[in-house]
Amino acid sequence: MSKRVAGPEIERLIQLLAKLPGLGPRSARRAALHLVKKRESLMQPLTAAMGEALEKIVICRTCGNVDTSDPCTICCDPRRDGGVIIVVEDVSDLWALERAGAINARYHVLGGTLSPLDGVGPQDLNIESLVTRVREGGVREVILAVNATVDGQTTAHYVTDLLANTGVSVTRLAHGVPVGGELDYLDEGTISAAIRSRTTF
Amino acid sequence: MSKRVAGPEIERLIQLLAKLPGLGPRSARRAALHLVKKRESLMQPLTAAMGEALEKIVICRTCGNVDTSDPCTICCDPRRDGGVIIVVEDVSDLWALERAGAINARYHVLGGTLSPLDGVGPQDLNIESLVTRVREGGVREVILAVNATVDGQTTAHYVTDLLANTGVSVTRLAHGVPVGGELDYLDEGTISAAIRSRTTF
Repeated sequence: MSKRVAGPEIERLIQLLAKLPGLGPRSARRAALHLVKKRESLMQPLTAAMGEALEKIVICRTCGNVDTSDPCTICCDPRRDGGVIIVVEDVSDLWALERAGAINARYHVLGGTLSPLDGVGPQDLNIESLVTRVREGGVREVILAVNATVDGQTTAHYVTDLLANTGVSVTRLAHGVPVGGELDYLDEGTISAAIRSRTTF
Repeated sequence: MSKRVAGPEIERLIQLLAKLPGLGPRSARRAALHLVKKRESLMQPLTAAMGEALEKIVICRTCGNVDTSDPCTICCDPRRDGGVIIVVEDVSDLWALERAGAINARYHVLGGTLSPLDGVGPQDLNIESLVTRVREGGVREVILAVNATVDGQTTAHYVTDLLANTGVSVTRLAHGVPVGGELDYLDEGTISAAIRSRTTF
């Protein structure tokens, strides 16, 4: 695969596309060809959209969200309950929570999870800024909406310990059967959690 | 998934990225976030590379190859044997053959295969230009290097019929066991073909 057969412009495009998550060398080649073929309908608008994103998109220094303003729209929104901070691993999780529209709070994006094996320590995540936000006051509750993975739970425990003396209530998302989920397809851990956390009907 | 939670700039970027082959709505979101995070190291160079590709890359009107000049480098190369034209479905197949470096001929990119079910007829492919190239003379052999799929073989038969009275020799790639392949993992069709086309050892 290392032999270069296309011109340098398209090879460079392929190399860069291959750095996107979900695209390997082969699919990056397909994507580059697709772009060349759909020049007017895709390559031009995508180049323009990326140029505009480059110009306008910033990362919010308060919460780590991706937006066109810093502080971001969510941090600036007076209708949001500033007393509740939802801690998420990634901006995509923030988007998922916003799509659900279940709560009208503010967010804090950690930017990943603690992962000693991958060399990710507390200093690599936005944990210190979370503690600062909480210490500045006005926060009643921190909801840990990290993923239910080992690394996610490790991070949740670490953050809980750090916030132990701040007086805020630290909560986590409920474990249970997904809505519309079938028991037969669920793992034992989830079923056990759903049994333990059962509610009156 | 239809609810828009990010700003319009990033939503537009996600929508366009989702049109790339291999990326769905979810992976397009991941890719867009990755781009925003790797602003300097990926989004800037990728935008520049796409801008350069937009400016420079054209499709060769002779063979359908993708290059920075029309006619393309391969069509212009005097060291290539112009007497042999390798017919491929797509530019990616041309690249695969060039990587193998097995033959120093010219190419003709059909741009797909005949597929009546998908409404792809001969007028949608670069078949007429192939016949024109062959009729213009100087061509001894047309190698049909289309994929060994039903649509590919249908296309091969169609092209062969069209070239029947031109006097050029029409050949196709050999079927057989892939080099390094294990018999146990091969389908019966390939094994039968390899038996039929056996050679002296």
